[in-house]
Amino acid sequence: MNDLASMKSKASARVDEARLWRRHMEMAKLGATPKGGVRRMALDANDNKARALLVEWARARGFSAALDPIGNLFIRRAGTDSAAAPVMSGSHTDTQPSGGKFDGIYGVLAALEAMEAIEDAGIATRRPIEAAVWTCEEGGARFPTGTMGSSVFTGARKLDDMLADRDDAGATVATALEDTRAALPGIAMRPMGFPVAAFIETHIEQGPILEREGKTIGVVTGIQGARRFRIEVEGEDAHAGTMPMKLRRDALKAAVSMIHALEAVFDDPADVVRFTIGRLVVKPDATAVVPGHAMFTIDFRHPDPAVLKHRGDQVAGVCAAHTRGCKVTVNEYSKTKPILFSGAVPEAIERAAGRLGLSHMPIHSGAGHDAMHLFEVAPTGMIFVPCWRGISHNETEDAKSSDLAAGTRVLAEVLVDLANA
Amino acid sequence: MNDLASMKSKASARVDEARLWRRHMEMAKLGATPKGGVRRMALDANDNKARALLVEWARARGFSAALDPIGNLFIRRAGTDSAAAPVMSGSHTDTQPSGGKFDGIYGVLAALEAMEAIEDAGIATRRPIEAAVWTCEEGGARFPTGTMGSSVFTGARKLDDMLADRDDAGATVATALEDTRAALPGIAMRPMGFPVAAFIETHIEQGPILEREGKTIGVVTGIQGARRFRIEVEGEDAHAGTMPMKLRRDALKAAVSMIHALEAVFDDPADVVRFTIGRLVVKPDATAVVPGHAMFTIDFRHPDPAVLKHRGDQVAGVCAAHTRGCKVTVNEYSKTKPILFSGAVPEAIERAAGRLGLSHMPIHSGAGHDAMHLFEVAPTGMIFVPCWRGISHNETEDAKSSDLAAGTRVLAEVLVDLANA
Repeated sequence: MNDLASMKSKASARVDEARLWRRHMEMAKLGATPKGGVRRMALDANDNKARALLVEWARARGFSAALDPIGNLFIRRAGTDSAAAPVMSGSHTDTQPSGGKFDGIYGVLAALEAMEAIEDAGIATRRPIEAAVWTCEEGGARFPTGTMGSSVFTGARKLDDMLADRDDAGATVATALEDTRAALPGIAMRPMGFPVAAFIETHIEQGPILEREGKTIGVVTGIQGARRFRIEVEGEDAHAGTMPMKLRRDALKAAVSMIHALEAVFDDPADVVRFTIGRLVVKPDATAVVPGHAMFTIDFRHPDPAVLKHRGDQVAGVCAAHTRGCKVTVNEYSKTKPILFSGAVPEAIERAAGRLGLSHMPIHSGAGHDAMHLFEVAPTGMIFVPCWRGISHNETEDAKSSDLAAGTRVLAEVLVDLANA
Repeated sequence: MNDLASMKSKASARVDEARLWRRHMEMAKLGATPKGGVRRMALDANDNKARALLVEWARARGFSAALDPIGNLFIRRAGTDSAAAPVMSGSHTDTQPSGGKFDGIYGVLAALEAMEAIEDAGIATRRPIEAAVWTCEEGGARFPTGTMGSSVFTGARKLDDMLADRDDAGATVATALEDTRAALPGIAMRPMGFPVAAFIETHIEQGPILEREGKTIGVVTGIQGARRFRIEVEGEDAHAGTMPMKLRRDALKAAVSMIHALEAVFDDPADVVRFTIGRLVVKPDATAVVPGHAMFTIDFRHPDPAVLKHRGDQVAGVCAAHTRGCKVTVNEYSKTKPILFSGAVPEAIERAAGRLGLSHMPIHSGAGHDAMHLFEVAPTGMIFVPCWRGISHNETEDAKSSDLAAGTRVLAEVLVDLANA
């Protein structure tokens, strides 16, 4: 066994499954819901508490912490070459409104655990290793824009645009960040963006494949692309008992026609298309009033750019063809292209899983992740572990402690590998 | 001219159009919305203020005021026979969430104005005359049950059931009524229900017919029946990017299928059916989450009991046939039968309109009104006046001051007529 192989082996051996699980349970208290899930909306009080707890754990191990202007949090273990770009791993602390205990937070806790395992093993690496918490990964939950922090970090979105993003209550990201900074007294501030040597994101699969195939580790091969639309339908409020049907301009009726027609456009017997209407809000929302306003969202994903273009480009036309006397506006507010991971990072992940004797397979990601932005600026890859029945974005989301630890052991080896490359 | 005719003429001549209009504008300030409408939800702070203002105006004229256990407010002008049952007129002060300045409140202010005109004319009547404010006429706005106060008054619904009715925030009617009583210090309390000699409700038409026909007064011939349903669809929250379409249990998709199929069932080329989905609420309401829950309401109205039965009875079956893997529960929570007005009250209305030289026509009511409950316990009728473009349950609802005064003059004559019968 050469030196590097020996270091990797020592690091992964020090991953502490009990500590990792305990921290997941501590984090799950921040925003805990009655049904056992988590509601930790981006930059809310619980999300800020999660950051504060991470900083506390990091400082106890002598790791430094810093915040950037969009609220991304970085925890750093120094390398022997202080000028070298860091190897980075991380994910997010925010959740969907009724989310689970593992989505996002696992990738953050795995990164911290791997850093502690490396520290416990007394291993020095050439490059610094950093754990990252990317701000507001969950789009359409509190703020409309998802993967906000990572996209600003890599330059895909502009800082000023995102600071002006608003939640449904009208609060901007800029305002919310004042609370975040206040929750982290003494935190160092870091300018936006810096070179990254490599990025690895560890995550529960959020789909049913690893469980069905009986594999512990998914070596992620890529992420499908996504297009998101917000459709506003404007009709006229009217009395449900008196206004003749033929004279109505019923915004909900129009929205239902549009959705019905869109379902046909996005139908896919191969079941590769993902087409979701996640929000539908009607106003004034009263039994005896014909609704004068309706808003709905479309979340459309596919691995093939041609399909994304061909089907997505039909949304506006289909909506315009089913207005039933109402006015419609279609706004495509988010678009991410499909990506493929290759090279050093997925190779290191596969190598580590093999060396550790863990069952593994290549897998494509149905969900978007911060890794898709980091991919644009650094060699990038992802490690998936199974989750129960593939259920995620749901309070019943669940994962096994042994699988979480296995993914973290793979990560520890990959970090040692790449931080000495 | 005999004595009665002379009294009627004197009373209607004292109706003060300017005072009536001014009071409408004062009431419109209580719950005023930015777009010029009114949001005065049943028993909320503004609805309580409206009651307090009425009591203030009543006491200034020497009329007495009393509240019953469901919050119905009665303003009384004494008759010469104190044992005689009163002739009563009134409507409601509450509105839809984005309602107008005339729906309901006109019937209350017209009753008070008619009583003041009779007082100003120095006319004594044998029977007492009362103005009534019926609690929570607008169903599905704050509380699910509409015409609440009038239905409890006549025994159609039980007081205890209605006191336990809850708004979406979980507050009961019983709790809300504590605030109402607190807003009316010194108000007399009156037991539930008492004999009524006759009931007349004055109201804007809330439909386009009088305006289209160029008539000032509608002599209302009846009210169509209504059936209201609440449909709950239970699926499973899932991740919009990862969960294959075939494995989803999407509650919104199921709801859209149900609504689409229901539209076909309720289609009516004659345009007599009124079929409205006024509410559709999706949870968790996030762009990237397949919705695990959807709730929608149906408001179905028709003048013919056979049609109400035949089409309404299909709702549960149609919903059950379009569950798409979800669970559905259909709850019919409200049902009112069609009614026809005849006899003393509509005859007195037609007589008064004719005597005053006002253009008038028989008209059927598309909307439900408190009068449909009073109809069960007393001779009852309604007076309609035109409203702009037939628009109601809408912030742009509008009516002409001269039409409001004309309806009130008719009412003053009818009250004098029936209070001496």
